[in-house]
Amino acid sequence: MQQSRMSATESSCPGNADDFGLAAEMYQWAQSLFPMCRSLTGPGVRATLQYLQGLVPSLSIHSIPSGTQVFDWFIPDEWTISAAFVEHEDGERVIDFRHNNLHVMGYSEPVDRWLDLSELNDHLHSLPAQPDAIPYVTSYYSRRWGFCLPDRQRRELRPGRYRVVVDATLQPGVMNYGDIYLPGERSDEVLLSTYICHPSLANNEVSGPVVAAALGRFLATMPARRFSYRIVFVPEGIGAVAYLSRNIAIMKEKTVAGFIVTCVGDERTYSYLPSRNGATLSDQVARHVLHHIDPAFRSYTWLDRGSDEQQYCSPGVDLPVATIMRSKYGEYPEYHTSLDTLGGVVTPTGLMGGFQALREAILILETNVVPEVTTLCVPQLGRRGLYPSLSTKDSSDQVRVMLDLLSYCDGTRSLLGIAEIIGQPFSRLRALIDRLSHEGLVTLRPA
Amino acid sequence: MQQSRMSATESSCPGNADDFGLAAEMYQWAQSLFPMCRSLTGPGVRATLQYLQGLVPSLSIHSIPSGTQVFDWFIPDEWTISAAFVEHEDGERVIDFRHNNLHVMGYSEPVDRWLDLSELNDHLHSLPAQPDAIPYVTSYYSRRWGFCLPDRQRRELRPGRYRVVVDATLQPGVMNYGDIYLPGERSDEVLLSTYICHPSLANNEVSGPVVAAALGRFLATMPARRFSYRIVFVPEGIGAVAYLSRNIAIMKEKTVAGFIVTCVGDERTYSYLPSRNGATLSDQVARHVLHHIDPAFRSYTWLDRGSDEQQYCSPGVDLPVATIMRSKYGEYPEYHTSLDTLGGVVTPTGLMGGFQALREAILILETNVVPEVTTLCVPQLGRRGLYPSLSTKDSSDQVRVMLDLLSYCDGTRSLLGIAEIIGQPFSRLRALIDRLSHEGLVTLRPA
Amino acid sequence: MQQSRMSATESSCPGNADDFGLAAEMYQWAQSLFPMCRSLTGPGVRATLQYLQGLVPSLSIHSIPSGTQVFDWFIPDEWTISAAFVEHEDGERVIDFRHNNLHVMGYSEPVDRWLDLSELNDHLHSLPAQPDAIPYVTSYYSRRWGFCLPDRQRRELRPGRYRVVVDATLQPGVMNYGDIYLPGERSDEVLLSTYICHPSLANNEVSGPVVAAALGRFLATMPARRFSYRIVFVPEGIGAVAYLSRNIAIMKEKTVAGFIVTCVGDERTYSYLPSRNGATLSDQVARHVLHHIDPAFRSYTWLDRGSDEQQYCSPGVDLPVATIMRSKYGEYPEYHTSLDTLGGVVTPTGLMGGFQALREAILILETNVVPEVTTLCVPQLGRRGLYPSLSTKDSSDQVRVMLDLLSYCDGTRSLLGIAEIIGQPFSRLRALIDRLSHEGLVTLRPA
Repeated sequence: MQQSRMSATESSCPGNADDFGLAAEMYQWAQSLFPMCRSLTGPGVRATLQYLQGLVPSLSIHSIPSGTQVFDWFIPDEWTISAAFVEHEDGERVIDFRHNNLHVMGYSEPVDRWLDLSELNDHLHSLPAQPDAIPYVTSYYSRRWGFCLPDRQRRELRPGRYRVVVDATLQPGVMNYGDIYLPGERSDEVLLSTYICHPSLANNEVSGPVVAAALGRFLATMPARRFSYRIVFVPEGIGAVAYLSRNIAIMKEKTVAGFIVTCVGDERTYSYLPSRNGATLSDQVARHVLHHIDPAFRSYTWLDRGSDEQQYCSPGVDLPVATIMRSKYGEYPEYHTSLDTLGGVVTPTGLMGGFQALREAILILETNVVPEVTTLCVPQLGRRGLYPSLSTKDSSDQVRVMLDLLSYCDGTRSLLGIAEIIGQPFSRLRALIDRLSHEGLVTLRPA
Repeated sequence: MQQSRMSATESSCPGNADDFGLAAEMYQWAQSLFPMCRSLTGPGVRATLQYLQGLVPSLSIHSIPSGTQVFDWFIPDEWTISAAFVEHEDGERVIDFRHNNLHVMGYSEPVDRWLDLSELNDHLHSLPAQPDAIPYVTSYYSRRWGFCLPDRQRRELRPGRYRVVVDATLQPGVMNYGDIYLPGERSDEVLLSTYICHPSLANNEVSGPVVAAALGRFLATMPARRFSYRIVFVPEGIGAVAYLSRNIAIMKEKTVAGFIVTCVGDERTYSYLPSRNGATLSDQVARHVLHHIDPAFRSYTWLDRGSDEQQYCSPGVDLPVATIMRSKYGEYPEYHTSLDTLGGVVTPTGLMGGFQALREAILILETNVVPEVTTLCVPQLGRRGLYPSLSTKDSSDQVRVMLDLLSYCDGTRSLLGIAEIIGQPFSRLRALIDRLSHEGLVTLRPA
Repeated sequence: MQQSRMSATESSCPGNADDFGLAAEMYQWAQSLFPMCRSLTGPGVRATLQYLQGLVPSLSIHSIPSGTQVFDWFIPDEWTISAAFVEHEDGERVIDFRHNNLHVMGYSEPVDRWLDLSELNDHLHSLPAQPDAIPYVTSYYSRRWGFCLPDRQRRELRPGRYRVVVDATLQPGVMNYGDIYLPGERSDEVLLSTYICHPSLANNEVSGPVVAAALGRFLATMPARRFSYRIVFVPEGIGAVAYLSRNIAIMKEKTVAGFIVTCVGDERTYSYLPSRNGATLSDQVARHVLHHIDPAFRSYTWLDRGSDEQQYCSPGVDLPVATIMRSKYGEYPEYHTSLDTLGGVVTPTGLMGGFQALREAILILETNVVPEVTTLCVPQLGRRGLYPSLSTKDSSDQVRVMLDLLSYCDGTRSLLGIAEIIGQPFSRLRALIDRLSHEGLVTLRPA
C-alpha cells in the first residue's frame, strides 16, 4: 500500500480505490496468518512476527527468557508442538491436530498413553450448545493435556481403548513479542496494541495484527506525523505485562492516547470499550468516530473489559487506552471456537471497517486543533463567498454548520469538542475550519 | 402608563387594572409602528426611532455613516424607497408597493424597465406552500431588485410585457439606532436589545420594540433600581455589531444579565433560547420565569439561535444574553411573510404575556437576595403566628413551603436558587422571605 | 443478646440464630413500651427512658427545666395526666383514656365541665376517611383540651349533656431525654437519634427506640469500635433542639455520619430520606445498604422530611444525618392513628429488617477501607489459588468480581465507592478484599 498523506477530509471517504485494494490485501494477510499455531510462546508466535515484519519492516522482534519475572508474573516455558492425535484401537484417528490446531488444548504437556473412553473423556472439551464447534481451551499455568472437538463428534466416540499422543515440548526458552516505533514531531506517543497468541481464530485474533499492520504501514508513509506511534504485538495478558515491565517509564511519561486493536474483522456491528478512566482523549475520539460511523454502535463499560486494557489501565499504570472493535470478544456466537473463521466471521469489508474506524481516530488525533476567531461578532461571510447573497426564508439554514462552528471558536475548545457539541463529524468540521482559516477568520493551534 | 414601583409579589399578579390598560396601549403602539417601511437603514428606521422616543423620551438616536467599518463589517449605503410597482402592458398594476411594503425585496436597487413575463419571473419571489402569503425577502449585500407576491397571484400573471419600477436610492448616508440608559444603584448593567429593521411584520418585528419600550417606561418609573439598564434598538445583525463596536468595553465590564426582546406578541406558547454559555444568570432567570408561567414552555438550544444573541454571545464578546419569547422566529407558519400581522398573529394579550415574562425576569434580578437564618434549628413559628397551634394529621403540610424555604436559608444560596430547588415561584418565596425577615428569622443580603 | 463482634461478612447474613432471637426480643421490648403514655414531657417519657436504661445500662437520663430557652424555643411545662373521660348524662362513659391513651389530645389542659353535644363536638377529633381509627392529635404550644375517637363512634353519640374530665396537670417541671456515648478508637462520632414522645403508636414511635436500643447493645458489645457512637433518645422536635443546644460544639466537630431511627418496624418496604446536603457519607451508606436489601426501596427527597433531620441538618448545624426506614411516617395508612399497632403494623420480622439495615450501615462505616494494589498490572491470581487453572469459554466469568474489585484498588477510592461502581454489595467485597489483603495483593487503610 503506497499512500501519500491524506487530508482529514479525504481520509474519511470510505470507498476510494486505495481502500478497496487494502481490504483485499488485509484479507490476504489474514489468510496467511490464520493457520499458524500461535500460543503464548513458541514457533507459531515467531512465524507470526516474522510475517508481520515482512509487511512493516520497522517491526522489531524481542524475546524474554522463560522464568523472567515481569511484575507479578513469570515468563512460562516455551511450548512447541509438532503433532497430536487420538486414535481408536482399531486404528481410526478420531482427532488430529493436523486438521485444526484448536484440537489440542493450548500448552498441553506431552503424552503418549492408552486409555479407555471414560478416562479419555476427562481430557476432552466440547460445547453441547454448539455441537459443531471445536472450543478453544488453554491451560497455561497448570500442567495438563487435553483435546477439543465438536460435541456432535464426541457423542459418537465408540467404546474401546484409545491412544492419545501429544508430541510437544514444554521447556525453558523465550517468549517473543514485537513492536514498531514511529517518531513524530512530538515525542508524545499514541499506543496501538494487539495480540498474537491465539491459533486459528479469525476475528478474535488475526483481525487484530492485520489491522495493526495496515495502520503501521499507513502511519509509516505519513510524511509528517504530529505524534510518535508505538505499535505493540504481544501475547495477550502476560505479553502486555512483560511489555509494560520493560517500557513503563517512557509509556507513562509519553502516552497521550491509545487503542487496543482486537476483534476488528467482522461486519456485524461496531463496539466501544472505555478505558478505566472513561474520559480520556482516547475515549472521546473513539466515541466520536463510532457515533458518526453508526449511531447505534454498542457501548460497553469497563466491567465488560477482557483484553489488554486490563494491563494498560491497571491502577498505577493508567494509560489512556480505549478499544474500538467490530463485534466484541465474548459477544458473538463464534467467539473462541473453530467457527471464528475467515469467511465465516471475518471479511475484507469487515477488516476495512475496523481499519477505517481506527484510521479516523488517528487522523483526529493528528489534525485536531483549537480554533479561535480573529474578529469579534459574527464575521461577514458574504463578501468572502461563504454566504448566499439573497436572503430568503430558507437561506439561513445553508451556512448553519459554518456559523455553529464559528460560534464555538473561542480558543477554549478543540475542534473535536466542537464537533461533539454541534453533532457534526470531525472530518466535516476539519474541512470547514481549513476554509475559515484560509479566509483569515480563525487561527488554529494544534490541540 | 404611570406606575409606582411594584413589589415582587404584586408584580407577578397578571391581571391588575394597569396591566389591562398597558395591553391595549402596547397594541396601539404596534399599530402605529406596523406600516412603517423599515430596513437596515433609511427613513423607516428613523421614523420608528422617533416614535419610540415619543414613548420613552430618554431614548437617544444615533447614526453611523455608510462605509464605516464595524468589526468585520461595513455600514451599507442608505436605502430610500418612494414607490415601486409592476404594470402589465395593458395598464393593470399587478404589484404595488403602496399596498404592502413586503412587495419589494429589501434593498432593491432602482429600476425602470420593460420585461416579458419570463424575464420578470427571475425577479419574483413567492411561496408555493403558502400561496396567499407575500414572502419577506432582502438582498442587503448584493445589488439586485425583486418583487414578492402571493404564489396564487403569481400563477395568474398573464403573458405579455411588464413595466417594473423601483423608485429608490441606494447611496451613502447613515445607519441609525437608538438606546436608553437608566442608571441604578449599581453601575452593573442589564441589557435589553431589540431590532427595528423589518417592515410590516408583527411578531417578528414590532412586538419587540413595543415590549422593549413598555419595559423602558416601567424601568424609568421605578423609584430605586438596583441595576442600571441599557435598552438597545438596532437593525438586526449589523446594528448589533455596530452597537457592540462602539460600546463593547463598558458592556463587557458591566453587563450582568441581558435579554433579546423579539417575538413577544402572540399567544401560542412561550419559548426560551439560551445564551451560548447556557448557565448564566440570564438563563437561570429565564427558565425560572417561563417554567412558572407554563411548565410546557419550549426550550431551544444555542444551535437554534437566529437573532442578535449571535453577536452578544460571540466568542470574545460573550455577554450573558438569553432570549425569552412567545412563538420563536422560524417556528410559526406566518414567520417572515405578510401573514405575520397584528390581529392575525399578535394580540394585546400576547404582547402582555411577553411584557409580563420579561418584567418578572427583571424583578427577579432586582429583588433576588441571599437569605441566612438567624437561629440554629427550626425556629418556633407558632409563637410568631406563622404556625397553626393545633397539630393534626394534615397541619404539617400547611407551613411546608415556609419550612422548605427556611431549611435552605444557609447564606450560600440565592432566593432564586432556593426557588428552583423547592419548585416554587420566586414571587411566592419573595413574599415569604419578607415575612420571615420581618420576624427577624432571616437576614437578607442582595444577590 | 450476647453477641461477639461479627465480621462484615457474617453480619450481613440475615438469618442466623442470634438474629431470630433478637427479633422476638425486640418485639417483647416494643410490647412493654407500647402502652406507656408518652408526650413531650412527663412520667411516660421517664418510664420509657428507665425501661431503655434497663436494656442498655450505659444510657444516661437528663432533664431540662421548663422555661429554659433552647435556641429559638422554650422548654414547655410538664404534662401529667392521670385520668380523662367523657360521660353521658345517663352515666355511660363514652370515651375513657384508660382504654387508649390516644383518646386524649396530647397536652390537654385540665377540665371538668358539663357540655351539650354540640359544644362537645368542638373538642372532638375524628377521621371520616378512617372511621375506625382514633387520630393522634396534640396541642403543645396552645392551651386547649380535646378528645379523639373513631368517626364511626362519634356519629353515634346521642344528644344530651356530657361531663368531660381531664384530670391532668400542666406546670413547671422538666423535659427528659437520654443518651448513650460509646467511645471508639477515634473520637469521630456516629450519631443515632430516635424519639420518645408519642403514646401508643407502634411503627411511628416504639419501633425507633427499640431498634436504637438493640443497636446500642450490639455496639456496646463490639470489642473494638473504629468510631465513637452517640445514641440519642429525645422528644421529637424540641427534644432534638434541646439536645443540640447542649451538645452542638462537640457534635459539629466530631460527627462523621448519622441516622434518624424511626419507622423501622413494619414489613412493607424500605425507605430512604436524604440529609439536606444529600451527598454525605450517611447518604452514600444508606443508599448502598437499601439498594442491596431491595433495589425497589423508596427514595424520598429532603422536601419529604418530617422528623429530627430538620434540626440536625438545619442551616448552621448541618450534620450528616440521613434516615433509613421501613414505611415512612405520613406514607402508610395507619400513621398517627390507633391503627399503628404492634401486630397490625409492626412485627418481629419488620423490626429485624430495620435493625439489620442500620447494623449493616454501621458495619460499613466501621470496616470501610481504601485498598491499593501492591503490584502493577493484573496480578497472577492462579498461583495463589484464586483463579481456575483451566481456561475455558466460561472461566473468565468466575473471578470477574475479584478482578473488577482489583481494577479499582488504586488508592483513591474506598471499598464502598468501589462497591457502588461495580454494583456489588459491600459485604461481598469486604470478604474478597480481606482475601486479597491476606495474599499481599493489596494494602488497606481505614476509610
